[in-house]
Amino acid sequence: MLIDHFKDAFRAHPAGVAVITAQGRSGPAGLTASSVSSVSVEPAVLVFSLASASGSAGEVAAADTVVVHLLGARNAPLASLFARPAADRFSSALAWERLPTGEPLLTEVPRALRARVLSRTAVGSSVLVTAEVLEVLSPAEPDEPLVYHNRTYHRLGSHSAI
Amino acid sequence: MLIDHFKDAFRAHPAGVAVITAQGRSGPAGLTASSVSSVSVEPAVLVFSLASASGSAGEVAAADTVVVHLLGARNAPLASLFARPAADRFSSALAWERLPTGEPLLTEVPRALRARVLSRTAVGSSVLVTAEVLEVLSPAEPDEPLVYHNRTYHRLGSHSAI
Repeated sequence: MLIDHFKDAFRAHPAGVAVITAQGRSGPAGLTASSVSSVSVEPAVLVFSLASASGSAGEVAAADTVVVHLLGARNAPLASLFARPAADRFSSALAWERLPTGEPLLTEVPRALRARVLSRTAVGSSVLVTAEVLEVLSPAEPDEPLVYHNRTYHRLGSHSAI
Repeated sequence: MLIDHFKDAFRAHPAGVAVITAQGRSGPAGLTASSVSSVSVEPAVLVFSLASASGSAGEVAAADTVVVHLLGARNAPLASLFARPAADRFSSALAWERLPTGEPLLTEVPRALRARVLSRTAVGSSVLVTAEVLEVLSPAEPDEPLVYHNRTYHRLGSHSAI
């Protein structure tokens, strides 16, 4: 009962959309997350949570450094791709490259933050991760942002402003 | 340079809007936060961060229990009120009441979660808080959600869906 109401409440709570990548033990890994938020400006620290510690989430959770891509509206297909279970995400069809430091960078995203993991805290079966931002990259042109709400992607712009 | 790019990146990263209240040492306290996110479903745990440990943020950070109000589009004036420094927030003009457990509840908000603080972690001058949800309340009618992006409030709905 409480659990259902909790899920309903957060399904209706909108969030910006990110894809978080890392160089995993067996190759590039990544997943879609709608839990990225800034915690502190000095030092520049962000937080995100992962709903499990297995699969792609486990690879990302175990990495020393990650790349947090903040998606634009035109990146909705990327959000869907990286949300699908067990998808072959880094196929030849994906626009990505490796940074000099080894992490995968999605090159069609307007903004990406390379960050060093500071802490990992288990909460139930989830992991809460804080990370200090080392570099802010702008792989592609600016875009209106992508928002996730009630299992639907939305585009913000002058049409949605109050 | 890094700090400016970090701030720009998160200013452009959209977020749902919440007002977090608590019974402070000297009376009801509350503030607007765009950092609320769900971490775990079982147990039902959410996370938020506070940019300082003084003023209203300090009162909320120190409380044992808080009420996290997830705002609808019609609550944009509440978001502005609770974001203003040193505003007299709980004046007679505000629609609020006290829960049987003592915390202030804003009665014009579609959804509110009463939660017990589990952890407080200092990150720079900010505080990262996790809290376990005890009760999900529906003080007012459902509404389209409120989103904050580039210092502007937005309303989601069929007009913004991709």
